[in-house]
Amino acid sequence: MNYQRFFEDAIDQLHAERRYRVFADLERMVGKFPRALWRTGADTREITVWCSNDYLGMGQHPKVVGAFQDAAGRMGSGAGGTRNISGTSNPLVELESELADLHGKEAGLVFTSGFVSNEAAISTIARLLPNCLILSDELNHASMIEGVRRSGAEKRIFRHNDVAHLESLLQQAGRERAKLIVFESVYSMDGDIAPIKEIADLADKYNAMTYIDEVHAVGMYGPRGGGITEREGLADRIDVIEGTLAKAFGTLGGYITGTSAVVDAVRSYAPGFIFTTALPPALAAAATASIRHLKSSQGERDAQQRQAARAKQILGDAGLPVMPSVTHIVPVLVGDPELCKMASDRLLGVHGIYIQPINYPTVPRGTERLRITPTPFHSDALILELRDALVETWNALGIPYGTVQRPEVSASERIVPLLVPKSGG
Amino acid sequence: MNYQRFFEDAIDQLHAERRYRVFADLERMVGKFPRALWRTGADTREITVWCSNDYLGMGQHPKVVGAFQDAAGRMGSGAGGTRNISGTSNPLVELESELADLHGKEAGLVFTSGFVSNEAAISTIARLLPNCLILSDELNHASMIEGVRRSGAEKRIFRHNDVAHLESLLQQAGRERAKLIVFESVYSMDGDIAPIKEIADLADKYNAMTYIDEVHAVGMYGPRGGGITEREGLADRIDVIEGTLAKAFGTLGGYITGTSAVVDAVRSYAPGFIFTTALPPALAAAATASIRHLKSSQGERDAQQRQAARAKQILGDAGLPVMPSVTHIVPVLVGDPELCKMASDRLLGVHGIYIQPINYPTVPRGTERLRITPTPFHSDALILELRDALVETWNALGIPYGTVQRPEVSASERIVPLLVPKSGG
Repeated sequence: MNYQRFFEDAIDQLHAERRYRVFADLERMVGKFPRALWRTGADTREITVWCSNDYLGMGQHPKVVGAFQDAAGRMGSGAGGTRNISGTSNPLVELESELADLHGKEAGLVFTSGFVSNEAAISTIARLLPNCLILSDELNHASMIEGVRRSGAEKRIFRHNDVAHLESLLQQAGRERAKLIVFESVYSMDGDIAPIKEIADLADKYNAMTYIDEVHAVGMYGPRGGGITEREGLADRIDVIEGTLAKAFGTLGGYITGTSAVVDAVRSYAPGFIFTTALPPALAAAATASIRHLKSSQGERDAQQRQAARAKQILGDAGLPVMPSVTHIVPVLVGDPELCKMASDRLLGVHGIYIQPINYPTVPRGTERLRITPTPFHSDALILELRDALVETWNALGIPYGTVQRPEVSASERIVPLLVPKSGG
Repeated sequence: MNYQRFFEDAIDQLHAERRYRVFADLERMVGKFPRALWRTGADTREITVWCSNDYLGMGQHPKVVGAFQDAAGRMGSGAGGTRNISGTSNPLVELESELADLHGKEAGLVFTSGFVSNEAAISTIARLLPNCLILSDELNHASMIEGVRRSGAEKRIFRHNDVAHLESLLQQAGRERAKLIVFESVYSMDGDIAPIKEIADLADKYNAMTYIDEVHAVGMYGPRGGGITEREGLADRIDVIEGTLAKAFGTLGGYITGTSAVVDAVRSYAPGFIFTTALPPALAAAATASIRHLKSSQGERDAQQRQAARAKQILGDAGLPVMPSVTHIVPVLVGDPELCKMASDRLLGVHGIYIQPINYPTVPRGTERLRITPTPFHSDALILELRDALVETWNALGIPYGTVQRPEVSASERIVPLLVPKSGG
């Protein structure tokens, strides 16, 4: 039994499949976002980040950084314990009530990450409901899948955003059985949006509980940044709204909001919440500052939507295969893992543009892509620079141009989107 | 199907069993540790925290807070993405190499919490080894148990620190089968230490892999703070050393260290690592500052040991049932969940001393206790104040005095430690 060999083999396999990930060593610079320093060996270069999930650049906002530094100076760098054992700080208590208010819910609960919030909340809720059936969208995030798995509950996967399929599964289960529908509002790799109203209607009709992941929407949609559920006036029709503090709010951590009873039950029963050190007060204070700012300021949201629309238009006009997206996410299809990695490497090495390749298993094979996230700080000039770099890369590597159509077939067959080649391309 | 009712029932059950947790709302104060502000309703009082896991008070150390504030000012409040997608910051890369150096290992990997590090690393390692058998100490932390569960591997539980039992299980499995022994160095609720050398010897004899959790030891034991494995010169005999940045190092996050191959495999295969936002650069910078300071400064460790020994002596002299502990942890036996909660409430309300009650399921029923953690900042005067408050509380509530003997029976029967009543008490 040579243990080392198994780990080496596992790594070799990733190399063979061109799935081995190398992390770019970056140093963000407050005031210069989205510029960053990229270190590679002895060399350091200034580059532009085009794939950040700091969607609104709030991680460098003076109010947020100020709250962070101020709270650290007054309360220190750590929480000092679990929530139960001396780790509940006043900024964390304030943050939870701010989040409850953001979504119009009775209570909020903060976790150290969005991953843990989904895993802990979904598994705990499903375990507390007798003989619960979980109905889960096929494209749900890994953290939701882990929550479903860990619950031990029976699960049925419905085709992505397919309400007819969901209804047939609900019908089979019947009104009397406990049922939990888990889905996302914005699907981050495609940029599409769930039919929330239709799902809420089905939940009413068949008496199911609903759990939505709004991590790619909070801060960015709705007049106060309450997400797609706020924008569409549907927050009160969803039982649990989950979100993150680590994307548009620019800090760290995840959360759920819901009735006092469901939040208190997760607080009291989830091992991943109970047995872990609380978020430091400085991060809680920074998150609260960010949420409060975005509750009243529409400027960041407008600028993000404007630059995202502009990027889609300009890249599409150049014949680049921009995938259909109704949100701020701009995926550009490559369709091959090796080409995708090569494109990313070339963009960084030759053009100083950092866009991480998105390969299987994050997306289905054949849909490998560059996932671009324009922020309010990606200026028109930067978009033009991006277009030129992409075109040069597409030409140099022979990646197909064309128009990507949203497939009309059912979601489970949408693995390979339809690429209509550019005439002459 | 009334969903709300199930969550309400779950909460009612905790109330009925006197296990419902109320979190104290605290505000730490840099420069005044272990003093904190306690908010209760409209009232705010200054109290002394005696149950913090900021074991050395590093959460308020000027070097640590300074590094935290400085990095936030330069790099902002968040990482902006997962490790793979723009979230790997230079301070995080430095932190990982600092941790590898701390434990004399080839590589280190940082997670957003110790809970996630145990869960992700144990489950991933066991899954990558064919037909792996996990041998797990019966008192392992909840996060290790989750890792074992999630691996899907077969497991055998060995009696706490019982090498003879462990050997019999290893023998049954045979040399050829893949085996992973998971255990802790310091068990945080009792303050006892694992027989690391004997376990390493058994691992050699039966060709097993070893994984140790040093979260309650790093920073505090060993000439550079490398934990019990460093103190006993055994770090090179353990395959994976796991630790936390959220206790003695005063910040947030967890980590593993080991060979490059095992660390790279966990990095590449663990969903809980891959699909989560990276630790913010400011926290990484603060953690590195803390580790570096404790690598060269012995003062904090000496003062902690001195004050812990003094507290044990003074509380024991007063007849209080101090449980046997060979570490900085000072557990005082109450033996009843309701009395334990009442004692904690009285200490806080009457004496301004905050010690969270430790009840089932964190510890076995019948061993409910107050778990006291003296730090270098708990002065002699504070220890005397603590003693007087405990004596008043013991008398007021009629909690038994006495001497607690480490039971000589096997660990699985140690549920109720032997309390020898104080003569006349």
